Formats: sequence, C-alpha cells, structure tokens
Amino acid sequence: MLQAEKVNAATGRTTVNINGQEYVVKGEEPEYIQMLASYVDKKMRQVSHKFPHYPPVKVAVLAALNIADELYKVQQDYETLVKLIQEEKRG
Amino acid sequence: MLQAEKVNAATGRTTVNINGQEYVVKGEEPEYIQMLASYVDKKMRQVSHKFPHYPPVKVAVLAALNIADELYKVQQDYETLVKLIQEEKRG
Repeated sequence: MLQAEKVNAATGRTTVNINGQEYVVKGEEPEYIQMLASYVDKKMRQVSHKFPHYPPVKVAVLAALNIADELYKVQQDYETLVKLIQEEKRG
Repeated sequence: MLQAEKVNAATGRTTVNINGQEYVVKGEEPEYIQMLASYVDKKMRQVSHKFPHYPPVKVAVLAALNIADELYKVQQDYETLVKLIQEEKRG
C-alpha cells in the first residue's frame, strides 16, 4: 500500500513511496505515476511476504521480473488479437 | 546484457544474472525466464546509465516502474482493440 504522495506543481515531479522508500519521478500526470508506484509497491510487498528474508534489492528485482512476465503475456494476447483481426479482414 | 545462465533440470530452477547478481527462479521454461531476466537486466542498465550514483535497490525499483509503465500502455492498447472488435461485431 502506498504511504505518501507529494506533487510539486512547479517542477512536475511526483514523490511516491515504494516499499518504505521515497522516489521522485518526473512526469506530467501525478495520478498515473501514483498508480504505477502503487502497483510496483503491491508487487514488492507480495515478494516480501513470500520471501521475508530477502534484501530490498532482491525483492525489487523479483518484482520487476513478475511485472515483465505480465507485460510479456499481455503483449502475446495483443498480438493474438491483431492476428485474429487480420485473418477476419482477409477471410 | 545477461552474464550467466544455469539450469538445474532436476529441480526446474533457472539461475540468471541480473545487474551483476544471481537469482534463482523456479519455472518450467528456462528460455522464457532467461528472456524476462534479460529484459529486466536491460532496463536496470538503462536506469544505471542515466543515474550512475543510484544504489542498486533504487535502480531496480525505477526499472520496475518503467516496466509497469509499458505494461499499462500495452493493456490500454489491448482494451482499445477489444472495444474496436466489439463495435465492429455490433455494427
């Protein structure tokens, strides 16, 4: 669960808290950055819960691997859908 | 770039090297795990290159945020495509 959020309107920097650490992220949409940070935070907490003795860097890398896994699967689904559309157009 | 890969066929565990650290990942497809690890490794190196003084945990978390950003965008593309298909079927 995300613990803090601060937005500096002048610089467009959003401060988010992920796994107990603050991160400053540049971007135009603080809500979007907040949503992504919340997602990464959730993934890290899931890994931490499963491997309570892992150091934070290992937790973060395994969370990144899990997110990459989801990304790959959605990419596959997307490509399958594109192929289906192309086949329908042809046939 | 990934530096090492070891697969223990008996246990189904794959050892990958991400940003100079070894990680043991359980899974049935070592090539898939290797591909994901290579992707996370690349993302971490991109962050490290941009912020050479960041500690590894910060690099890993920012890499995870970047991957989450890609995941969200592909999910949006996927949903847009599904809506398009539904509209075509209706009309």
